[in-house]
Amino acid sequence: MKIVIAPDSFKGSVSAWEASLAIEKGIKRVLPKAETVLVPVADGGEGTLDSLVAATNGRKVAVSVTGPLHRPVQAAYGVLGDGETCVIEMASASGLCLVPPEERNPMVTTTYGTGELIKKALDDGCRRFILAIGGSATNDGGIGMLQALGIRLYDSKGNPIGWGGQALGDIADIDDRNFDPRIEESQFLIASDVQNPLIGPHGASHVFGPQKGATPEMVEQLDHYLTRWADLVEKKKGIRLHDLPGAGAAGGIGGAFQAFFPATMKRGIDIVIEFTRLGEKMRGAELAFTGEGQIDFQTASGKTPMGVAQEAQKQGVPVFVLAGSVGPGVETLYQYGIHSIHSIVSGPMSLEEAIDRAEELLAQTAEQVVRTYMANPAHHE
Amino acid sequence: MKIVIAPDSFKGSVSAWEASLAIEKGIKRVLPKAETVLVPVADGGEGTLDSLVAATNGRKVAVSVTGPLHRPVQAAYGVLGDGETCVIEMASASGLCLVPPEERNPMVTTTYGTGELIKKALDDGCRRFILAIGGSATNDGGIGMLQALGIRLYDSKGNPIGWGGQALGDIADIDDRNFDPRIEESQFLIASDVQNPLIGPHGASHVFGPQKGATPEMVEQLDHYLTRWADLVEKKKGIRLHDLPGAGAAGGIGGAFQAFFPATMKRGIDIVIEFTRLGEKMRGAELAFTGEGQIDFQTASGKTPMGVAQEAQKQGVPVFVLAGSVGPGVETLYQYGIHSIHSIVSGPMSLEEAIDRAEELLAQTAEQVVRTYMANPAHHE
Repeated sequence: MKIVIAPDSFKGSVSAWEASLAIEKGIKRVLPKAETVLVPVADGGEGTLDSLVAATNGRKVAVSVTGPLHRPVQAAYGVLGDGETCVIEMASASGLCLVPPEERNPMVTTTYGTGELIKKALDDGCRRFILAIGGSATNDGGIGMLQALGIRLYDSKGNPIGWGGQALGDIADIDDRNFDPRIEESQFLIASDVQNPLIGPHGASHVFGPQKGATPEMVEQLDHYLTRWADLVEKKKGIRLHDLPGAGAAGGIGGAFQAFFPATMKRGIDIVIEFTRLGEKMRGAELAFTGEGQIDFQTASGKTPMGVAQEAQKQGVPVFVLAGSVGPGVETLYQYGIHSIHSIVSGPMSLEEAIDRAEELLAQTAEQVVRTYMANPAHHE
Repeated sequence: MKIVIAPDSFKGSVSAWEASLAIEKGIKRVLPKAETVLVPVADGGEGTLDSLVAATNGRKVAVSVTGPLHRPVQAAYGVLGDGETCVIEMASASGLCLVPPEERNPMVTTTYGTGELIKKALDDGCRRFILAIGGSATNDGGIGMLQALGIRLYDSKGNPIGWGGQALGDIADIDDRNFDPRIEESQFLIASDVQNPLIGPHGASHVFGPQKGATPEMVEQLDHYLTRWADLVEKKKGIRLHDLPGAGAAGGIGGAFQAFFPATMKRGIDIVIEFTRLGEKMRGAELAFTGEGQIDFQTASGKTPMGVAQEAQKQGVPVFVLAGSVGPGVETLYQYGIHSIHSIVSGPMSLEEAIDRAEELLAQTAEQVVRTYMANPAHHE
């Protein structure tokens, strides 16, 4: 019996790979001879790089880059097993997780490090990029990244501008003559589930600014800066980012990719499923497991379990979901191929305990689910 | 498809009947046409009366009796559907739950009310008794019950003694000439899982006295009193209660039944299974559900899920257990016919929340378990 094990990470607890191993352990207690196929997945957020590197037997390259607060940080990019596709998680260079809450300030934070990561990967020979742009600390319209890749930005007096959201307000001119020419020779797949426009009430600053530390005044200012930036880009490149869906992703870096890069935006989970070749691995499976820290009605919008279920549904493979916490409205997920949903929590306990014991609880729950499935008389013969 | 639903109560949360209904609700969400057979069960402890009355379409009779602290309490006995078998839960007349923690004192508490309940049921025409003796507040050797049924107990000066553990120490003579003659015409089935002897380090006072409020000094005293009582009973009735297994049940009332009543002791769960005719109801079922607040390795010793599983195993029916909390060592239960074990808790939460939401969580978990079972291709045809 072939069983595909394709969980996401359980945020703050176990990685997707650790979750896969724990689920496998539980399954093997019941079916020691089962053929288990481990496909740790991610939805384009945290863990995307690790998932794709693990699934393709790729490698991870550590690089020191400029962090969101302009101080050096240790980041990494991944090279997939094909040797030519590179995976970059923007959060590893410019992520909110790199900024202590008290220092969160999108007037300051820059995407420069993300640009440096792209540059290093270009130097490494990569020409095919997957860019996961979730979890950013920035609202700089992506200018830091552009600066790192050779685009020069000047203020009204002709002086080069600085970094961050504040600098965005100074831009009067764009000079892309030194823009890294290898960009044009490359393909960029942008993993993002965000459909927000660059500016306005649904734009980057209003919707995502506050969680990055923007005060209401900053939100207004940043939205104004991004508007001027969009005007300038339209003049320079003939592309209207203002209302473009996805341009507001990751503090406006979504727009920068669309204006300056040969880029395509796709849902993170779809990219991960494509590159992990989950569909192919699902072939001939009798069952599939997926999972995630929290599952609820929101899971329907592009989360890992949904993506796995849709792939499984195409091939008629039932999918069981294991989750740290099962929230309301999960019955809406059945139509997408999710067969049943189980919390791994074994009794009343705190979040801390559930996080600490996640591997044991995952194994235990997977075991019980397989036992229930196997109770069916069809398997008694 | 026939599904038997035979849970115990979830202590402090839902009754066995409520649990059955909640599980049924979850099952019907998946299999609206399933034939569900509800058999709320109990293991001889709290809920035994309700379980047997519900399972046999019997009736409950409210009676005012003397409580453990000598004050009147509202108790009840049950008459089963056969019209002749009566069920008495000792705890309803002489239970620890009737005594506030600060008043717990086995020198005082009496089993008199339990005797009164028996008397009322005899008056009502019952001659077949099931006595569930768990949860008592008493350590009086059962003398209160005997007193209520006409046995006279005198001190060394020939004066009638009082009630409770203290009075036990005064007994010098037993006069059973006024013992209710209907007792001899009756059958008493004593539901108890306790195998402890009456006295000594494994006896009633040492093992169960402290939880009933006995201080270390009281424990010694009560053990001494029970020893003298056992000597007296041996002289009078020719039965040695001292080391008799089960004589130490419920503060020694187990011994009183064995010495003065036509009584048989049986495991509570076995009696419940017999009288609910669970085996018969299991016939032709495809699945069975059972459940209990807490399940762990101790469940193997006579708890409800075990009894249900053993009955199901005889007929090859897989049993799924739903529990509020799944503790360590549950894998030891598989050999007894328990197929899989699922916590109803849907994520990290407090005990209070789990208790409050028990019905919703039971329904949700039963639904998921059935969905998992039905994922099997045998059911896709």
